[in-house]
Formats: sequence, C-alpha cells, structure tokens
Amino acid sequence: MALITLLTDFGLQDEYVGVMKGVIAAISPHTPVIDITHGIDPQDVTQGAYILAAAYPYFPAGTIHVAVVDPGVGTHRRMVAMACGGHRFVAPDNGILGRIAATGQAPVSAVYIENRDCFLKTVSHTFHGRDIFAPVAARLATGFPLEELGPAVHSDLLVKEKGLLRTFSDDGEIIGKVIAVDRFGNLLTSIGKDDLFEKGCDESRCPDFRITLGSHVIQGLSTSYASVSRHFALAIMGSRGLLEISVNSGDAQTQLGAKKGDTIRIRRCPPGSPLPPHSNRLK
Amino acid sequence: MALITLLTDFGLQDEYVGVMKGVIAAISPHTPVIDITHGIDPQDVTQGAYILAAAYPYFPAGTIHVAVVDPGVGTHRRMVAMACGGHRFVAPDNGILGRIAATGQAPVSAVYIENRDCFLKTVSHTFHGRDIFAPVAARLATGFPLEELGPAVHSDLLVKEKGLLRTFSDDGEIIGKVIAVDRFGNLLTSIGKDDLFEKGCDESRCPDFRITLGSHVIQGLSTSYASVSRHFALAIMGSRGLLEISVNSGDAQTQLGAKKGDTIRIRRCPPGSPLPPHSNRLK
Amino acid sequence: MALITLLTDFGLQDEYVGVMKGVIAAISPHTPVIDITHGIDPQDVTQGAYILAAAYPYFPAGTIHVAVVDPGVGTHRRMVAMACGGHRFVAPDNGILGRIAATGQAPVSAVYIENRDCFLKTVSHTFHGRDIFAPVAARLATGFPLEELGPAVHSDLLVKEKGLLRTFSDDGEIIGKVIAVDRFGNLLTSIGKDDLFEKGCDESRCPDFRITLGSHVIQGLSTSYASVSRHFALAIMGSRGLLEISVNSGDAQTQLGAKKGDTIRIRRCPPGSPLPPHSNRLK
Repeated sequence: MALITLLTDFGLQDEYVGVMKGVIAAISPHTPVIDITHGIDPQDVTQGAYILAAAYPYFPAGTIHVAVVDPGVGTHRRMVAMACGGHRFVAPDNGILGRIAATGQAPVSAVYIENRDCFLKTVSHTFHGRDIFAPVAARLATGFPLEELGPAVHSDLLVKEKGLLRTFSDDGEIIGKVIAVDRFGNLLTSIGKDDLFEKGCDESRCPDFRITLGSHVIQGLSTSYASVSRHFALAIMGSRGLLEISVNSGDAQTQLGAKKGDTIRIRRCPPGSPLPPHSNRLK
Repeated sequence: MALITLLTDFGLQDEYVGVMKGVIAAISPHTPVIDITHGIDPQDVTQGAYILAAAYPYFPAGTIHVAVVDPGVGTHRRMVAMACGGHRFVAPDNGILGRIAATGQAPVSAVYIENRDCFLKTVSHTFHGRDIFAPVAARLATGFPLEELGPAVHSDLLVKEKGLLRTFSDDGEIIGKVIAVDRFGNLLTSIGKDDLFEKGCDESRCPDFRITLGSHVIQGLSTSYASVSRHFALAIMGSRGLLEISVNSGDAQTQLGAKKGDTIRIRRCPPGSPLPPHSNRLK
Repeated sequence: MALITLLTDFGLQDEYVGVMKGVIAAISPHTPVIDITHGIDPQDVTQGAYILAAAYPYFPAGTIHVAVVDPGVGTHRRMVAMACGGHRFVAPDNGILGRIAATGQAPVSAVYIENRDCFLKTVSHTFHGRDIFAPVAARLATGFPLEELGPAVHSDLLVKEKGLLRTFSDDGEIIGKVIAVDRFGNLLTSIGKDDLFEKGCDESRCPDFRITLGSHVIQGLSTSYASVSRHFALAIMGSRGLLEISVNSGDAQTQLGAKKGDTIRIRRCPPGSPLPPHSNRLK
C-alpha cells in the first residue's frame, strides 16, 4: 500500500492543504496521506530541501512525497518526479529535491512532469499543488508508472546550487548557515554530521572544535540539552543529523539574538585558546 | 466509502478538533476524516461559507462535510443537514451553507437536526462540534438516512443575507469585500468569476475593467503573479474562482495597507482613462 | 483495530509530528493516527496532563495515546506505559499521566518502558517522540503486550504533585489556577465539576458561589455564553468538565487582563454580599 506525504509552505490557516487531500481522495480513496509539515517559511526552497531530506527516511519504502514550495508557480519553471532509495518524490524543479538527489541512496531516476492526462482538467495559474502535484501523486499511488509522466532528466540537474549551502573556507573552516528556527527557538544549521566527520570530528563531543555564531563562541558539542547549565547555549548534533544551536530550557533565537540566514563557522581550536575580540564564550 | 471533512474556526492550538475525530472514530471507525481548515477567523460565518463553497467540489461525491463556525452555540439557533450535488453537509443554521445552497448543483434537500438519538448522550452548552455535529456526521457515514435527522427545511431558508455579499451599484459597478487574507498576504474577495462574466468580462485579462481598493487602482486582470514586476500589485482570478488581490513576491495585506472587510469596486473603464483623485495606479 | 493518538508540545510548524507518523506507518501501516493537539504550551506538563485527561474518554476503547511533553528528554527521566479503562498511554514519567492515573477508571496498570527492541535502532538525545514513543505505540498497535515493555510500576508513582493543582484553603475556599488559554481567549482552570460538587455546588448555576480572579468577581455560574450580555464575563462549567472563565462574544484573556498561572478562588457567598475592596463585580 502506497502512502503519500505532503510538505509545503502553505501553512494550515487556509484550506489549501485540505483541498489537496480532497483531490487525492477523489483519485485514490484508500491512500493514507500524512503531513510532514506545512510550516516551511514562505517560498524558502532551501529550508524545504533540508527538512524533506531529513524527514523522508523515516517513512516506509514505497512512500510518495509531495513537496510544494513553489515561488515560480505560474511561470515556465518545470516540475519533476524522482525515484530514489525506494521512495518517490513530486515537486517543482527548483532545487527542493536537490539535497536528496545529491545525498540519497542510488539509483536516482527522474522525469519532468508533462503528462497532462495526470493533471486536473482545469489547471489554475496559482495552485499547482491542487491541480498538478496532488493528482500526479495520487495516480502514482494507484500504480501509474513514474516514467510515463514525462521525459527523463539527469538527476544532476535537480541539484541547484542554492539547495546545498555548506562550504569550506581556504583555511579549512566549515561555513554554514542557520536554515530554520523551530518552535522551541532551536537554530537548525546546514552543517551535517558528514561535514564534521570530514574535518576530523569523529566523536560526538568534538571538544577541540569551536563554533562561532555572530559574537557567540561555543567550545565543543554537547550530547543533551541538560549537559549545560540552564539558560546556557550549546551546540548539539540534532535529531536530523544537522548541527543545532540551542539554549538549555531557553530559546536560542531570542537569547542569542540570532536569526535565519546567520552564518555559522566551525574551526579546530583547542579548549582554552584565546577568543576573538568582542566575542562571548558560552560554554 | 464515505469520507468526512471538517471546517471550523477552532484553530489547532487546542484539542477541540482532535476530540471531534475521537467521537467520529468511536461511531464509525473506518471513515477517513480530512481537515479542510480550522483557521476560519473566529466566528466569521461569511468567510466559512465562501471557503467551504470553494473547497467542497474537490472532494469525492458521497463526502460528508462538517462546518462549525458557530457564534450562537448554546442559544436557540437551529442546526441543519443538507444534501446537494452528491455531497452532504452538517452545520449550524446561520448561513454557513448559504452560498452552497444558492449556487450548488440541484437538487438541494435539507432538514433541521433534531434527532437526539444521534447526539452524544450528554450535550454541553459550548461544544456542539463534539456533542452533535461530529456524531451526526459519523452516523450519516454509517448509513443513517439524512431525512431521519429531523423535519425538512426549504433550502431557500439556508441562504442568510450575510452569506452573499456581492452587490451591484446603480450605475453597474460591482461592489464586493475582502473576505479573507491568506498565509501569503493575498486578499481573497467576494467577487466571483460569474459576477465578472455578467458584466461582460468574458476573458481572463479583462483589460478595460478597473479594480479599486481604497486608494489603489489596478487596471485589468493578470493571469499569473509573475506577469507584473516584483512588488507590484495585481488582480487575478484566484484558484477558488474568486477575485484576489496580490503583490508579486510580496504581501498584499501589508503593502497595500488592506484588511478583511475592505470594499472592492470594479467598473468598466478603458485603460488610460484618468484616475480618481488621491489614487495610485498600480499597474 | 487499534487507533493511535498524539498529544505533544511540538507545534505544527516543524516536521516533528509528521516524522513520528512516518515511524508509526513503517511499523504498523494500517493503524490510523489522530492528533489530539500539538499546541500544548512548550514544556507545560501540567497543561498536557489536564488536556489529555479531558480528551481521551472521547476515543474508542483500545486506543493508544502518545503524550510527549518532555522537558527532561536526554536526561535520566524514565518513561512509562499505562493501561487504564480500556485505553493505553505512552509518555515520559513526569506526571503527564498523573491526572488519569488518579482519576481514571480502575484498574490501572503501568510499566517503565525499557525494552530497547521496541525503539528505533538509533536513539537520539533530543527526539524520543520519534525514536522511542512512536515506535513503542506502533508495536502496541500490532499486538505487542504492554507488560513486555519493562518492569511494573505502581500507578501511584505516576501521580506527581504538579499534575494536580487544586487545593482547599483552611476556611473551605477552593483554590485553583488558570492552566490554559484557548484560541478564543477562554481561560481554562484546574477546578473540576467534582471539586464544586464536594463543596455543595450540586446544580449547574450555583448562584451562591463567588468566583474571584485577580480583582474580578463573578457571582454564580452560567450555562451558556449568551446568558450574560455581550462583553460581560462569566464562569461556566466547560465542555471538559473544568471551570472556565469567558467573555460573551469577547476574549477573557485580554479583557480581564488574565494569564496562565493566575489564581482562581471560589467561596460560598450569597448574591449581593459586599465585595472585597478594589474588586469589580462582573455579573
């Protein structure tokens, strides 16, 4: 039995998500639909790419994931369907599948979505989630073959630059960004377990790595919120396999004056080495 | 297999919606329940009427729609169940079904909900969604006949004045209101495709129609957000079949200083004709 | 067929809830999952305890309820599974099940959750909802026996002090707290129907009981919002069996300047008796 998931920036205030589920139920009435989230920041394709890549492996093989963060809706942007590691994905071709295409299990195969027989009869200019993505996913759930949706596309083309933020500086510093702030004020960064491993942080605490966020400096990683004092900041390998900055029993966003888009830097630096000027050691 | 949808102003912060689903599951365990939305503005029956009318046709025939925006809960307001175009509806008798009764597919039949055998044993004064509407919908899903819920009511009685806002002025101007603002700041109006058609706007762009909202004037309709420059306002026949005012890559509510309840006027007026004083041409 | 419910403080902005449902679907694909709410105030175990106790009886017997408000995640706090009145519960051992253990239908049986065979293979430090509670609930849904999750625990131990707020003063006053504010601004208190009954309020209106909240005084209970004038405050036995303070067609939180945690006092006091100084009679 296939399962369909939805990840969008539509929020739950409006009826957009409910109507997509109506369309799916009309085509494939017995297919369960699970919301991954509809709280992606409006039009933030990069955030959607990271969250989808972190979430999809927890779903059973055979799941069809619909990802609609689509600032280009109504323009000539293309749409894609992708198979990867037993999962299928349906999305606008704007990089939202890029992180999965780049890091997911091979083999990856993908097509452009062009087969209008799979769309609703009337396609609006502003709501392809309802008119194209939901019905295409529902048809896949009824057994329609992915390769009949349109012409093949090389999966390398799905990896748009903006979906993959991590870089290394010339002197080996890892440079990432805050890509999301969660309900609790935790800062989710683009720096993954593999990035740290590549730089020699092969254990969970990495005491000789120094994390810098604005004027704040954190030495080493923690393995639980409670391993620092209440209201102290910490860096932790979060449940998504991405580095997070948190405050124990607090709100990192507010207490560190941080926001989405802020730069985070990590370099090897023994505990006790002098701090940069104007910075605060947090731990 | 029947399907139940829920549309309310309960929000998702509290457990109200979850408890309604528990009641349904206890009576009709195999009936899927889909949330259309719970984000109707508190007690805004008119908004609920428009959103429900726009959403229900996307669900499969046989669906039972529960609509609870119910400022009169606990008073002597009546409750209604209605069948229309293969769908059924359960709601307080306050006009929330009025737009469907007036514009939906015939035949429409309706009854007052009075059969207490279909309610929970204890009926509270403040939560009929749980105690009456959810169990009534669940019983309909198990095959209980709608006409046994109570005495017939003529569907004309379901069309309360406030559910239908559109008017024409003496000189043929179409006058509507902003009935909702969505997550993206788009302004949803009460002016539908049929209203424009009636006044001679029979193509999608209608270049000689002038739309006025406060001191802002928009000439003609657009067919996509991206058909105007970034941060410019546009009028577009939205995905619900209702006229919307949007700002490309922006937020119309904030950028136009508009809000729910604002009046919108449309008149035939060739491109280039002089503007009213103190108004801004937006496109 | 078992049913799983979820009650958390995770909100719906992030993908946390969606991922828990993925984990459940991977283990027990045919088990329906219903959200009770994810809007419990962050880390407010007491609020979660009250809401869960009020909501669970509306679900069918056999339901498995997962409650995750878990400020101690990653520390040495224990986890519990409990059976009570035909329902099962899975939660951190922090008092969130205390109100049900204390007031629910006997017999109550409970175990500590220790059987790692029921967890995901990798358990993170920060997301036991995904790694432990969701998979444990899913295994219960597939028929795994509760008693094999770990050693028995006496249900008295589940009743932590903070889960039960109501007290009586020396002179017989009932003292409770505002435990939640709902979407409409209604103030939910910790004072239940039984507390009032115990003090002699055996009818719904209890005209000789005086309710004090800050400087506001309300005489007697109402049976509907509309039984007082618009914008007047009232006390009402709410749909959860807990006393609520509301404003007819208004927002009690804003209009009374009240907030979560405020103290509420009830004493027997005939209508018309003199008010305390600096207080306002509201009804």
